[in-house]
Amino acid sequence: MASQSLRFLSLTRRAFSSSTSALKFNGGVSMVQGASRGIGLQFVKQLLENNDRGHVIATCRNPNSSTGLIHLKDKFADRLKILPLDLTDETSIEASALSIKDAYGHLNLLINASGILSIPEVLQPAYYVSYICNTETTLNKLEKSSLMLAYEVNAVGPILVIKHMWPLLKIGGGFGTERSTAVVASLSARVGSIGDNHLGGWHSYRASKTALNQLSKTASVEFARKKDPIVCILLHPGTVDTDLSKPFQKNVPKDKLFTKEFSVQKMLSIIDNVKVHDNGKFFAWDGQEIPW
Amino acid sequence: MASQSLRFLSLTRRAFSSSTSALKFNGGVSMVQGASRGIGLQFVKQLLENNDRGHVIATCRNPNSSTGLIHLKDKFADRLKILPLDLTDETSIEASALSIKDAYGHLNLLINASGILSIPEVLQPAYYVSYICNTETTLNKLEKSSLMLAYEVNAVGPILVIKHMWPLLKIGGGFGTERSTAVVASLSARVGSIGDNHLGGWHSYRASKTALNQLSKTASVEFARKKDPIVCILLHPGTVDTDLSKPFQKNVPKDKLFTKEFSVQKMLSIIDNVKVHDNGKFFAWDGQEIPW
Repeated sequence: MASQSLRFLSLTRRAFSSSTSALKFNGGVSMVQGASRGIGLQFVKQLLENNDRGHVIATCRNPNSSTGLIHLKDKFADRLKILPLDLTDETSIEASALSIKDAYGHLNLLINASGILSIPEVLQPAYYVSYICNTETTLNKLEKSSLMLAYEVNAVGPILVIKHMWPLLKIGGGFGTERSTAVVASLSARVGSIGDNHLGGWHSYRASKTALNQLSKTASVEFARKKDPIVCILLHPGTVDTDLSKPFQKNVPKDKLFTKEFSVQKMLSIIDNVKVHDNGKFFAWDGQEIPW
Repeated sequence: MASQSLRFLSLTRRAFSSSTSALKFNGGVSMVQGASRGIGLQFVKQLLENNDRGHVIATCRNPNSSTGLIHLKDKFADRLKILPLDLTDETSIEASALSIKDAYGHLNLLINASGILSIPEVLQPAYYVSYICNTETTLNKLEKSSLMLAYEVNAVGPILVIKHMWPLLKIGGGFGTERSTAVVASLSARVGSIGDNHLGGWHSYRASKTALNQLSKTASVEFARKKDPIVCILLHPGTVDTDLSKPFQKNVPKDKLFTKEFSVQKMLSIIDNVKVHDNGKFFAWDGQEIPW
């Protein structure tokens, strides 16, 4: 508890120092994909609180079931737009892009925050995490269905969102903000690093995040080649104290188990400050680059 | 043509120097998955020719349509076993493992050679390569179906083969050969490297190979932890002159376009000589390690 309190104090200090100088994205239009709860919801909250002229589009599969988003909508009615988006259905991604185009005409920031497998009403993320932790400790137990589903949701979904938001991000660039480029930030995970894989296990989750890293890097190469004003990065949030991480928190030292507030504040600071030369990179919450 | 001839001479010299000292795998039982043609078929041929006491199991989806395998069967009837194996159907992988267990009781070498998407009667590899080259030059054209199919065949299939052959490889180890460990070698590709991705494009193919790299690395970590006598590596064959590479050969310098014979001979030399400390690594045809 002591170290958690310290972490919280540390968070407060950092949040304060960050919010006294508003986000460079202030005035911009941001989209958070995977916003119903956890880290995604916290991104929406901090973007609205630290970005008093900005607009946020929060997407998730079933907005009506997200009490967190409904609560934020009460408070920030005129600056928060909630859209249904099903990552496994490309037509729904396309429909969101059209809706954002009609309402705002551009995007300055896209955050792919669906960092853990989560398909409400189909597969509960807590169940999935528990399944991966308890089952995929050995190759013997690896199932094709788990490999395919993790890939569809963690790798294919986010890159299709980038595909369809790309024209809006190109128009956006730094328009209306202090920044000179738009940013695409996708939540990956350190366990997606091949070079850093010393423990094994979690095959489906690891492979899906590794593939997301490659897909994001491939997109970043094209953005650079076409001189589009977009910086595309990957982020590792650390181990965050949410329902989703419960099954494996026991192996995490207390000072490495972050609050959502702390992790998102750190990641938002990275997002707000990335430069053109950071395009295609993979950062941990503390700004350290993670090997592929 | 001149440089192709030189390459062929060089191949002959190397093959000769390699076959004077027979493979360390001689006497062993090897399986080549994806053996109907191209690189896989060439692995079968060289394993039979340079391994006069060894047995080879060649698998592919539809053995009756592989004239290459039928020809080898005529010549090496008693040392070549051909089995049907459909990478997209785990029960067929399991059936192959049972059949190998009944016939030999162990495996010394597994080569996952289905290095390019190839599902005879469903999707022709030449069509697929041409599709990827012509279509996936931009994120705009990326299709979910292509991403999912490449992942299923290039990443999920090979790791499921490793899963089911693992008990046989564990029994095999170096049994009956000069080696002290069994080897699993999976054909990856340099374009699967994230760190080496400077050109972009080919999203589906790249991501599937990157995921295969992570899945193979994850398996290697478990083999090491359990002290199983198995070394698990990834290989990049170079650009090999086959029907499959025709669509993009025009951008390959002549001296970088290898014959199947040359590429397989180089890779077989790596496979035959890998040590325990090479477990989990990714090598190009010339033995150079490739970054993740």
